[in-house]
Amino acid sequence: MKTFSTVRDIEPSADSLPFFTQRRTQKHLYFHYKLEKDDIIYGLGENMGNINKRGKTYVSYNTDNPRHRENTPSLYSAHNFLIVDGHDHFGVFFDTPSKITFDIDNTTDDEMFVRTANDNLDIYIITASDSNSIAREFLSLIGRPFMPPLWAFGFGQSRWGYQNEADLLAVMEGHKLNKLPLDWLCMDIDYMDHFKDFTVNKLRFPLLSRFVEKTREKGIHLVPIIDAGIKIEKGYDVYDEGIENDYFCHNKDGGIFKAEVWPGMTHFPDFFKPEVRKWFGDKYESLIKLGFEGFWNDMNEPSIFSSEYSRYQGRLDVIKSYLNPHHKEDKAEEAAHFDYHNFKNSVEGREVVHHLVHNLYGGYMTMASSQGIERHYDKRFLLFSRASCIGAHRYGGIWTGDNESRWDHLRTEFHQLPGLNMCGFLFSGADTGGFGGNCTRELLLRWLALSVFTPLMRNHSARHTRKQECYRFGHTKAFRNVLGLRYRLLPYIYSEFMKAALSGDMYIKPLAFVFSDEKGRNCEDQLMVGESIMIAPIMEKRQTQRKVYLPEQMTMVTYRNQQFSTEIMEKGEHTIIIPEDEVVFFIRHDHCIIIGKPAMNTSEVDLDDVELLGDGKEYRQYLDDGYTKNASMDNTRLCSRTTA
Amino acid sequence: MKTFSTVRDIEPSADSLPFFTQRRTQKHLYFHYKLEKDDIIYGLGENMGNINKRGKTYVSYNTDNPRHRENTPSLYSAHNFLIVDGHDHFGVFFDTPSKITFDIDNTTDDEMFVRTANDNLDIYIITASDSNSIAREFLSLIGRPFMPPLWAFGFGQSRWGYQNEADLLAVMEGHKLNKLPLDWLCMDIDYMDHFKDFTVNKLRFPLLSRFVEKTREKGIHLVPIIDAGIKIEKGYDVYDEGIENDYFCHNKDGGIFKAEVWPGMTHFPDFFKPEVRKWFGDKYESLIKLGFEGFWNDMNEPSIFSSEYSRYQGRLDVIKSYLNPHHKEDKAEEAAHFDYHNFKNSVEGREVVHHLVHNLYGGYMTMASSQGIERHYDKRFLLFSRASCIGAHRYGGIWTGDNESRWDHLRTEFHQLPGLNMCGFLFSGADTGGFGGNCTRELLLRWLALSVFTPLMRNHSARHTRKQECYRFGHTKAFRNVLGLRYRLLPYIYSEFMKAALSGDMYIKPLAFVFSDEKGRNCEDQLMVGESIMIAPIMEKRQTQRKVYLPEQMTMVTYRNQQFSTEIMEKGEHTIIIPEDEVVFFIRHDHCIIIGKPAMNTSEVDLDDVELLGDGKEYRQYLDDGYTKNASMDNTRLCSRTTA
Repeated sequence: MKTFSTVRDIEPSADSLPFFTQRRTQKHLYFHYKLEKDDIIYGLGENMGNINKRGKTYVSYNTDNPRHRENTPSLYSAHNFLIVDGHDHFGVFFDTPSKITFDIDNTTDDEMFVRTANDNLDIYIITASDSNSIAREFLSLIGRPFMPPLWAFGFGQSRWGYQNEADLLAVMEGHKLNKLPLDWLCMDIDYMDHFKDFTVNKLRFPLLSRFVEKTREKGIHLVPIIDAGIKIEKGYDVYDEGIENDYFCHNKDGGIFKAEVWPGMTHFPDFFKPEVRKWFGDKYESLIKLGFEGFWNDMNEPSIFSSEYSRYQGRLDVIKSYLNPHHKEDKAEEAAHFDYHNFKNSVEGREVVHHLVHNLYGGYMTMASSQGIERHYDKRFLLFSRASCIGAHRYGGIWTGDNESRWDHLRTEFHQLPGLNMCGFLFSGADTGGFGGNCTRELLLRWLALSVFTPLMRNHSARHTRKQECYRFGHTKAFRNVLGLRYRLLPYIYSEFMKAALSGDMYIKPLAFVFSDEKGRNCEDQLMVGESIMIAPIMEKRQTQRKVYLPEQMTMVTYRNQQFSTEIMEKGEHTIIIPEDEVVFFIRHDHCIIIGKPAMNTSEVDLDDVELLGDGKEYRQYLDDGYTKNASMDNTRLCSRTTA
Repeated sequence: MKTFSTVRDIEPSADSLPFFTQRRTQKHLYFHYKLEKDDIIYGLGENMGNINKRGKTYVSYNTDNPRHRENTPSLYSAHNFLIVDGHDHFGVFFDTPSKITFDIDNTTDDEMFVRTANDNLDIYIITASDSNSIAREFLSLIGRPFMPPLWAFGFGQSRWGYQNEADLLAVMEGHKLNKLPLDWLCMDIDYMDHFKDFTVNKLRFPLLSRFVEKTREKGIHLVPIIDAGIKIEKGYDVYDEGIENDYFCHNKDGGIFKAEVWPGMTHFPDFFKPEVRKWFGDKYESLIKLGFEGFWNDMNEPSIFSSEYSRYQGRLDVIKSYLNPHHKEDKAEEAAHFDYHNFKNSVEGREVVHHLVHNLYGGYMTMASSQGIERHYDKRFLLFSRASCIGAHRYGGIWTGDNESRWDHLRTEFHQLPGLNMCGFLFSGADTGGFGGNCTRELLLRWLALSVFTPLMRNHSARHTRKQECYRFGHTKAFRNVLGLRYRLLPYIYSEFMKAALSGDMYIKPLAFVFSDEKGRNCEDQLMVGESIMIAPIMEKRQTQRKVYLPEQMTMVTYRNQQFSTEIMEKGEHTIIIPEDEVVFFIRHDHCIIIGKPAMNTSEVDLDDVELLGDGKEYRQYLDDGYTKNASMDNTRLCSRTTA
């Protein structure tokens, strides 16, 4: 864990941990904090739960669970930072590679218990006068987040099931014919030869480098996937090299661990070894040579379908029992968790059971990829990953993992966004429309109306589900409107993202971080996006109106038929009507945002050519060429009504 | 299916089905209905989804899925009745024992497709001027619902995990010490000898009849569970008799079907045979002789953990693949669904694959139990079941199956209640507090504040979860308040339930069935309970206020510290504050409800001794001795301010 060095000298607190009382039992280390009724807890990044984390137990233990629901304890990432805002005011980061449990006002009323099984733990306490300052302190402690190029802020379309050139061409054509903007297209596991990393299925993509080039000429970036597991197959160079150099994780019995994932039986690279990270990272060179400038890493919790242990060593009885629907935990989770005890990682020369350092595996894969790409590519690139830990935010973005076409998963993303930002994952977003299950037009439109404001804006869906591209639902005008708005807001989104990343701030915040009055503090359905925008999207089925609380006078902006209209709204509560085909947001009083011209692709976006919107006087814009590595706060300019 | 005879002569529509267009493909029969934007669809009983069923696909195929979520297509029951309220106005009942799919405004906007695979289907269309009249017509078509005795309307406490007399005594003591009312206690599978139906574990319950009697002396009814599967064990009389008389379902290969459930390998009684129903129903005599007056039937979808087919016949590979978290459907569901093709039922002398008549299995078990109990017990009794179909409402109540301690499952119950009532299941309710997972004090209190109004009010939880009795959370006063309110409202609840049951009406209705203005029509978070009460509970975590729409002037009633207070509220929208430890509801203008004296048990409730609450003049009360079989609308009286 020392690899992710801190940028400030904050000493881990030793014996006398402030705020908490400690207790050690034979098995566990407990930290207890007494809550008062009105205290609020923020943080924990990618997790199920409200913005206020009270009333639930969270377990950081990276888990592939696409069907997560309200009481799911573990998702794809481990983000162990939280802020207590109440009678005390502080942030606390539990820096551990192991499983850690946060029982916040759940098992016992008004108590928070943090429990972990081992001592491999540093705790950082940050005190400041307000939550936003605490978050800023933490963000500067953990270091500057990943910054992708401008094009990655464009709209991305994705589906597990695009099989070949023709499928991808059809999507580009669909967007073009329907006048729907598009910047990037994902290539899911089907592009590979038998799901082997860094290979290409030649039947499906006979001349991939040419296809990538042709696509780039249309302004579209292709973004291929890379999974964690390496197929066991003699003659496959990545496998052979891994075997030859002892790059793969060992099992508990001294052999190499075998686990079933998409390619069948695989080995997992031991990303804990620097030489493995170097080797694996360099593999991206072949993809860069094919012309790719964006990548996504998947299945790196690591997700395991079965293993040599669960499959062959008498585990079948246990597996069978999972078929009992009343088995106490999710079946798939338990099977994978079982296997996390069956292999090892090499940590600074010492072999440790994977279980003990489980939460770092995905982060180390991202680090490997990011550093590798950086060695072979000289501009900013797109990289996002599924599993993560705090620290990995420096190397790539994340999406919030496989979800479903559910209204509650739309609300889940909304509640995750501020926590993700607190933990450094500014470049993040969910599978818009939902990965599993069949999306409806209404759900996709409402979800897009949120994704318009998330840095990562991708529509992604699974094989065998209803086709989910924006032109599949008829009445495409509404989709043109919401994607169109994204591109008009790009100058603001890009500028606010870069300013937040460069200055160690959050890009998306709870309302309470800006407006700390009673109603602001308890607001679970409004968020601040950048410095000047407040959003209050509709996140319920067949609802066309909602209540909005304005903590101050604001400008309500409606984007309808590709036109902005504005209305000054008084401080207080309002019921606003938002039809499916419109997007509404708010600009703070005395603030301005910048809007650009309509565009079908980021290549058409001129960051120089912007107008002001809002009742403020000026806007401080960050701008650069969209891919320079030398991003800095020097690259800003003041836009005012006269200059803009 | 003919067994559930209709009470009116409505002819099934033959060729010319009104409202729908029909299409037959090689595999399916399709019914199509064109929706307009503002049409609302009600119904479908126990299902995930809003009160308005648009925007989802529902599959009637009884399934044991305790972790159901928003997009789960199938729950424990098949309730194939719906009402279209819009440019047309009609009800439609698809009377089939088979799987049937309702794709309502989901795959295609503004279209409803109903799909089934076979012709074993009668369709009933009901037209009337308003939704309430359509529901009434349907309820009189399907016949008078089950009516339990008064004590079953008291508070029931339950947990999978009460092992013996001592555990049950401790719960009674816990309620008594904490001054929490209690009327009945469930005995889950642990009371049996190795989970064998109609047996008792003598170590845990050395003299059960005496224990039942002693408990009754305290005013408490014990309610034992009976499961569908019969343990395969020579010498166990139920098994031996079943084998001897060929009472069990055959497998597809001519033997008797073996399926694993709680007792290990079991056989399923073929409840489709009248002689099996007679035999199984008569088995309840032994329980009645022990003193029991209430029963619940479980696992009767039937739920299957594995079978001779899935376990022994090369199915392991498929089972293993369920461990892939991206498998397209829920693992347990698929395994059970697979087995539904592996056994048969004897329908009127003909053996048919269970799959084809699957949705009737649970209903026939309830019918068997109910008719059997009736033969051996001369008063009204309590019976509720998990799996059901329309028709089964005549024989028992239902609970909404195994759920979880989730706020969205609280909202799920809220949305199910009006649909359940439309389909005849007036005596219904959810596992209050949630079956799986750990409940919090806040969730239990909010859930109880809804369950106060459901005829079946039971707190039930699973083994290995946090103890969930009302005295486990500290500050028990709030629980005393909400349970106390139930008993003070019992005269109203009982009277309204009986009047609805006897007159063929719903007990719980959508707001829209009474107030059909625009806001009433689209209201998803308020319900009518009986003729005079409107409820608007808080169903979100850490929320203490909510918006309520009053379609007319109403009396707001607050129950706080075991005291009623009232306030007249004007028509329109209000924000009301409801702390955790209070319950708020509304009485319609010009209406009255009746309230009784505080009571710790229904034996203390005097239905004669009531007061009026509300701004109306009088209330028509149904009352009887609480268990007579001769319930009729003659047993009503008018309560007015002078007489009451």
